[in-house]
Amino acid sequence: MPPVQSVPEPRRVATLADVAGLAGVTVGTASKALNGRGSLRAETRQRVLEAAEQLGFSPNPLAQGLLAGRSWTVGLITTDSIGRFSIPVLLGAEDALGPEQMSVLLCDSRGDAIREAHYLRTLMARRIDGIIVTGRRTDPRQPLPGTPDVPTVYALGPSSDPEDMSVVPDEHGGARLAIRHLVESGRTRIAHITGPAHHAAAAVRADGALAELAAGGLEPATGRVHFGEWTEAWGRRAAALVLRAEPDTDGLFCGNDQIARGAADALRESGVRVPQDVAIVGYDNWEVMAEACRPPLTTVDLDMVEIGRVAALRLLDAIAGNRTAGTRTVPARLVVRESSLG
Amino acid sequence: MPPVQSVPEPRRVATLADVAGLAGVTVGTASKALNGRGSLRAETRQRVLEAAEQLGFSPNPLAQGLLAGRSWTVGLITTDSIGRFSIPVLLGAEDALGPEQMSVLLCDSRGDAIREAHYLRTLMARRIDGIIVTGRRTDPRQPLPGTPDVPTVYALGPSSDPEDMSVVPDEHGGARLAIRHLVESGRTRIAHITGPAHHAAAAVRADGALAELAAGGLEPATGRVHFGEWTEAWGRRAAALVLRAEPDTDGLFCGNDQIARGAADALRESGVRVPQDVAIVGYDNWEVMAEACRPPLTTVDLDMVEIGRVAALRLLDAIAGNRTAGTRTVPARLVVRESSLG
Repeated sequence: MPPVQSVPEPRRVATLADVAGLAGVTVGTASKALNGRGSLRAETRQRVLEAAEQLGFSPNPLAQGLLAGRSWTVGLITTDSIGRFSIPVLLGAEDALGPEQMSVLLCDSRGDAIREAHYLRTLMARRIDGIIVTGRRTDPRQPLPGTPDVPTVYALGPSSDPEDMSVVPDEHGGARLAIRHLVESGRTRIAHITGPAHHAAAAVRADGALAELAAGGLEPATGRVHFGEWTEAWGRRAAALVLRAEPDTDGLFCGNDQIARGAADALRESGVRVPQDVAIVGYDNWEVMAEACRPPLTTVDLDMVEIGRVAALRLLDAIAGNRTAGTRTVPARLVVRESSLG
Repeated sequence: MPPVQSVPEPRRVATLADVAGLAGVTVGTASKALNGRGSLRAETRQRVLEAAEQLGFSPNPLAQGLLAGRSWTVGLITTDSIGRFSIPVLLGAEDALGPEQMSVLLCDSRGDAIREAHYLRTLMARRIDGIIVTGRRTDPRQPLPGTPDVPTVYALGPSSDPEDMSVVPDEHGGARLAIRHLVESGRTRIAHITGPAHHAAAAVRADGALAELAAGGLEPATGRVHFGEWTEAWGRRAAALVLRAEPDTDGLFCGNDQIARGAADALRESGVRVPQDVAIVGYDNWEVMAEACRPPLTTVDLDMVEIGRVAALRLLDAIAGNRTAGTRTVPARLVVRESSLG
């Protein structure tokens, strides 16, 4: 039989109240003594300092925050559950907040208004210094209700109020980059396959694609944008459909990496060579998907990490009293892999 | 030109110090008045309450926490960056902590010891009530340094100290479920393709697979486990290799869903029917991967959300003084899709 192990009782961290109690003074006096404020007798101050040392009491940012009206804490509300798109935003925000010694309180509202209201109450009660709101969808969202006094930045999905602080990806510019790359590599019959027309991401990317095609004097192959689903299955079906309608299509710009991957599979399986016969460009740079694609996928990266970083820096500025209204757009970049070369 | 908009100055939330200042009493007296403690003159208490109302001061959990030695905050340290595996753990933990009004401070140490030490200092200074440590790898990890007094639970990747509180998936049992399903559906020549042998996840899943095969009186097809990479490319190569070495293989158990997906692609492209000729079972239930697989993939779900929930409940028990030592294992379950039917 194994020996019986004793489980150590978790020891409570000493509080200001403990220090005050041991020193025989009020909490207010103990606070003054430790902060070097107010007029106290030297003997009293000494007694408090000794009590603090004896209890291992160390300066407490919470207590200091209470006195200064600051908590050194930022609330991060993700509206559509934490996922592939909100994670890099979160990492970028954390990178920017870390050196400021700001901590991030995580609130996953999962698109549920009741959860969001609950979290908002919790955050306000904790006297957070600011809020970052992020979510998967890039459609504008209603501003948070009832937070007039706490600086708030919307990252990824902007607020519908243009006076709010929002930081968004350059969806339109990203699509133009993709088309420009295809045109510059000599493709002239370029089709666009994408997600549902009612998603802002699909609509704006399609606008950008058409604008850049027009700038090059081109119409989209098949004469229209193919809206559908954000799935590989749609990519397979749509690629087959496009090649049947316009067999000399030589470029495919896909609204996300899953559609692009489905398209690449369908073309390969029907004997069309990628990129020799048809070049493919995706969108999102979802690395696990882009790299597993055969061939590896050229795609647009919206730089979500930078969006999170810029959002956090704007929030810090606003907390410091330098609020800047309006929406800021972070540039996209193209990541070139084999699917568009040659 | 658009009209010039006035940008509202963020208003500071009233603090206990503000209330005390307005009422002309010390912070300690204001605290006593608001908490109904101590002996104060009725007139003094009344003055403080009026000042609190005038300033919109509401009970502050931080201040109450300071007095009680609790912060109602849990630190969540993710060791390998936030990702596909840590997100569901995080969601499960949040589900369990929410009703307790616990807030989660997020710390992404990204496997960097310096970041981890920094976060640990920050968390301790904030007087968190407990810590959950989670990460992508299921290999045991060294315990956090220097946190003897704060309850800590390791979720997903256990602590190397068996006296620590750990909550882990049933890797071994999950592999047995996969093999049992293949055997029960009549497969007898089952190969196992998986990730690197030095990853705990690959080694333990292989052990489970071999144990369950042996329980059914079977040897693995090709006579050995095929260790490699966690990638689709490896799945494609390994499936081809297995079918060449043992053409009558009728079942493939793959160590993760990416390997399984690669195997399914390779078999389809070489004219082998899935599941009629070869049934495939994956591992992880990464839904976007399992559902995009052709055909959709039967796979093992380790119930990461439940792991997070159990970890949080154990942490709450420990914070309440009921610490239970040792590792708890959460059962896996099989999600059956088309790749193993018929």
